[in-house]
Amino acid sequence: MKLSEPGSTSVKRLLRRRSSTRQVPASLQRLYRLLLAILPEECVDFDETARADLSKTTGFEAREPAVLVRPRCTEEVQLAVRLAARHGTHVYPVSGGKNWGYGDACAYREGCMLLDLSRMNRIVEVNEELAYCVVEPGVTQGQLRQHLRASGCKLVADAVGAGPDCSIIGNLMERGIGLSRYADRAGHSCNYEVVLPDGSLLHTGFGGCPGAPAQHVYKAGVGPQLDGLFAQSNLGIVTRATVWLMPEPERFEAFFLVLRDEQPLGALTEALRKLRLAGTMRCSVHAFNGLRVLGGHERFPWHAADGTQALEVAAPELLQRMLDRHGIPAWVATGSLSGSSAEVAAQKREMKRVLRAVPGLQTVFLSDRKLRLLKGVRQVLERWKLLPRLCRRMEKVEVWTDFLQGTPSYKTLSGSHWRARGEPGPDNDPRDSNSGLVWIPPVLPATREAVEEVTAIGKSFFRKHGFEFSVTISMLNDRALCYLMSIHFNRGDEKERERAKACHDELLVELLARGYIPYRGGPQSMPFLQGAAPDFWTFARKIKRALDPDGVISPKRYL
Amino acid sequence: MKLSEPGSTSVKRLLRRRSSTRQVPASLQRLYRLLLAILPEECVDFDETARADLSKTTGFEAREPAVLVRPRCTEEVQLAVRLAARHGTHVYPVSGGKNWGYGDACAYREGCMLLDLSRMNRIVEVNEELAYCVVEPGVTQGQLRQHLRASGCKLVADAVGAGPDCSIIGNLMERGIGLSRYADRAGHSCNYEVVLPDGSLLHTGFGGCPGAPAQHVYKAGVGPQLDGLFAQSNLGIVTRATVWLMPEPERFEAFFLVLRDEQPLGALTEALRKLRLAGTMRCSVHAFNGLRVLGGHERFPWHAADGTQALEVAAPELLQRMLDRHGIPAWVATGSLSGSSAEVAAQKREMKRVLRAVPGLQTVFLSDRKLRLLKGVRQVLERWKLLPRLCRRMEKVEVWTDFLQGTPSYKTLSGSHWRARGEPGPDNDPRDSNSGLVWIPPVLPATREAVEEVTAIGKSFFRKHGFEFSVTISMLNDRALCYLMSIHFNRGDEKERERAKACHDELLVELLARGYIPYRGGPQSMPFLQGAAPDFWTFARKIKRALDPDGVISPKRYL
Repeated sequence: MKLSEPGSTSVKRLLRRRSSTRQVPASLQRLYRLLLAILPEECVDFDETARADLSKTTGFEAREPAVLVRPRCTEEVQLAVRLAARHGTHVYPVSGGKNWGYGDACAYREGCMLLDLSRMNRIVEVNEELAYCVVEPGVTQGQLRQHLRASGCKLVADAVGAGPDCSIIGNLMERGIGLSRYADRAGHSCNYEVVLPDGSLLHTGFGGCPGAPAQHVYKAGVGPQLDGLFAQSNLGIVTRATVWLMPEPERFEAFFLVLRDEQPLGALTEALRKLRLAGTMRCSVHAFNGLRVLGGHERFPWHAADGTQALEVAAPELLQRMLDRHGIPAWVATGSLSGSSAEVAAQKREMKRVLRAVPGLQTVFLSDRKLRLLKGVRQVLERWKLLPRLCRRMEKVEVWTDFLQGTPSYKTLSGSHWRARGEPGPDNDPRDSNSGLVWIPPVLPATREAVEEVTAIGKSFFRKHGFEFSVTISMLNDRALCYLMSIHFNRGDEKERERAKACHDELLVELLARGYIPYRGGPQSMPFLQGAAPDFWTFARKIKRALDPDGVISPKRYL
Repeated sequence: MKLSEPGSTSVKRLLRRRSSTRQVPASLQRLYRLLLAILPEECVDFDETARADLSKTTGFEAREPAVLVRPRCTEEVQLAVRLAARHGTHVYPVSGGKNWGYGDACAYREGCMLLDLSRMNRIVEVNEELAYCVVEPGVTQGQLRQHLRASGCKLVADAVGAGPDCSIIGNLMERGIGLSRYADRAGHSCNYEVVLPDGSLLHTGFGGCPGAPAQHVYKAGVGPQLDGLFAQSNLGIVTRATVWLMPEPERFEAFFLVLRDEQPLGALTEALRKLRLAGTMRCSVHAFNGLRVLGGHERFPWHAADGTQALEVAAPELLQRMLDRHGIPAWVATGSLSGSSAEVAAQKREMKRVLRAVPGLQTVFLSDRKLRLLKGVRQVLERWKLLPRLCRRMEKVEVWTDFLQGTPSYKTLSGSHWRARGEPGPDNDPRDSNSGLVWIPPVLPATREAVEEVTAIGKSFFRKHGFEFSVTISMLNDRALCYLMSIHFNRGDEKERERAKACHDELLVELLARGYIPYRGGPQSMPFLQGAAPDFWTFARKIKRALDPDGVISPKRYL
């Protein structure tokens, strides 16, 4: 596949014909002609509104692309990359652009060619026997869920909290964390098709051998394992991947572990680690503190506080009333058990036994039978317009337990608007409400000491800069946690934005100094990450130089 | 760290003093001087016997190193690599050199500097709380097992069948397959310390940040994941790694699944896949065919057959008698369940339910209580010299179930001498008996069709070339199998060796043509692997060139 030379008769004719040429800035006319010489008109978009729309962010800095390219297939991605290389432009691929709190769809530099892969949204294959699917980058978790349901096949995918429109591959490329046995999503995917910076193709694992029967079921292949290179980097563009699915279990049971006080959080951490290490619990447990949960129910009470101080400090009684109104405890942890009825019963018994070590812990188990009952009761109550507050709470539980079973929801995004002054649309996109949101997600060993240390550090910086300390702790594997702190701010207020940035930067620097390194970063974090492990990044840059000497793909993204 | 210039006074004095200089070939005198200039005398060995010893192989071709270097620490590895680069010599690192059937300790080229890392055998740390250990390449699985026992800590490591002297890191670097929940050994290790081809150091994951509390518990780190690059490659020398351990379970139960006929093997495969996909079974099940098991009990009956034909063809009745003598069925599959008593009971019930779909399958479960009883009975019988044959069988079961629980044994190696004419030592090293042994380990999706297809292909080539069809099938994950065929031959017989080579080459070519690619290879397989996925290997070589332009480390090993 070669670039056909631009300026051919048909292209000239096309250009003459098109009104859209007028909107193309003079400096980009050459790029525009080149693009139209190789891609259909519908794939190329210089429209100002569209570009501005994709530059919206919940972060500190928005960056606008020079042009949007919306390829429909891998070949068009290859062409676009080759063209960018020739033209000296950078490409920045986004799958769904929903990388909220980590830079959204924003490139790390202004004026890139933004490769919007959302049109490549084919579910190429679903294999029920071996429980996997093959997807393109535009496939969202909501789309896959619907597809699996509609096809009547008894498989479920792990889900993440970024809503139904979150791209599966996009999330994989950031090593997102899910909820189920397959919460380590990158670990449960394989066979990446990758467009390299020179426009050539690579298939990881056994994918390089066309028709290899095991290409969808074994990750490492033979020889060096390469797939790890393409997540959290800018070494290639993944245009297809195999994602492993789980058969629907005979029995599912959600659990909610409630702490009225923060104090026993360390003991809970220890107990959960033991349950994972013993193999009793296999899902990823996610624990939310009260402020994190509150964001899903309410907005910051601007009428009562100006937001320059954390609500815990400015109006502790008001905050407590808000928490009490929704029955929100200090911490609530949730996860699920699955298997045969007897297995789930045995796991539950063992969980209860181990969790007895956590003082004051309340444990609620909800079997699928109970959940169906709950749903039925709520529907009746709603029909009769009875107990509306109870109904809302019951609905929250339903949304969450559906989510644990692989059904993503726009509702899990509602917490992102906490300090926003605008209103989101029905898809709860935090950019629409002009939400300010950045994450700091350090990885910790699953020990009491680490959790208590990071809690203390995090709290002190959030307090100092006047933000509510909003936290989700997720189990990454049998022995590690991600301690995700979210800075919510009013993006419309420049001073508050600056405070948020200071909070982010200072806290991140402190955490890095103590060796608590984030599992993932956005543009706001990149300048800090590399200093913490110089030899690592020197090596990674060596690989970047070898593969992409001109820095065609996503400059500054991790590398 | 720089190489100090050779030829300094002390070195000259040392050289003058030493009688060993005489044994150094003239062509290597310069290398010898360089080595002695930077490393202590005890680390450098030109001794002919030692070199010949390390060139012994069960494979087709032995290759002798020019010199043995036995570093005691990472710094000495770095020095040796830098010196090799300067001198234009290649280094070939081996951890324990027990890579039997895949090239043993043999470099892929004659005349390398063999870096024998077995002296670096420190267990640097064992963390009981987070269940991991940090080891150097010389640490063997037997050593770790003993260390854990002696320290009284309630942790176990996954074990592989290569005997107690098998290096843990060496096996990791080949992505060996174990038996337990942590059978994916590479997936349960992290934080590699790597000496790069330029002598510099890299730490993967969070290891690059000294003191990072999560470095031992989280694999991916932030940014591109690099550890995958160093297994099955020649991109660096891993001098330290963190290996995840499992707490001893409350209850352990071994199972043996016995098929009298081969026919239901496909159905068994399907049932086992379902049990893994459902999460009921979490260990790796290993299934052995009768000929594979027989090798652990007997040697090839040279008195009755000349070995030019497979025993199945040459003397089927004799073979049947041999199998019957030891009660060996067509296939036996084994694995284990672990957890609380109730969990194990529930898993067992579910296993039995699903396995009912396999016609003619006999299922034997042995709880730890039963195993203790068995051991007691055998000891009594042995003391009274009663029922010796039963005792031997009981001992085999004990060895195997101990192995399933993490205790490696020299006895699991006994199958490797099947066609050897010599006698092994007490450590059952197949090189001592001059065993011929090479493996062909294609990866298959865990389906009836794939197992039946590969069985048919494998059988036909083994028959054609006159070798017994000896097979172990191992579950690599929830949906993939390794179908490991072992060609046992009499290494002392040149003709037989040639036939074995033809069998290996032809079978491998056929498997690759059908997309059944091995999960691992030895020097005998390398020339074939690359043709099956040219783009993959082109990419991998690009990385090699970037990191090791002069090809200092292990030329031809995978790359």
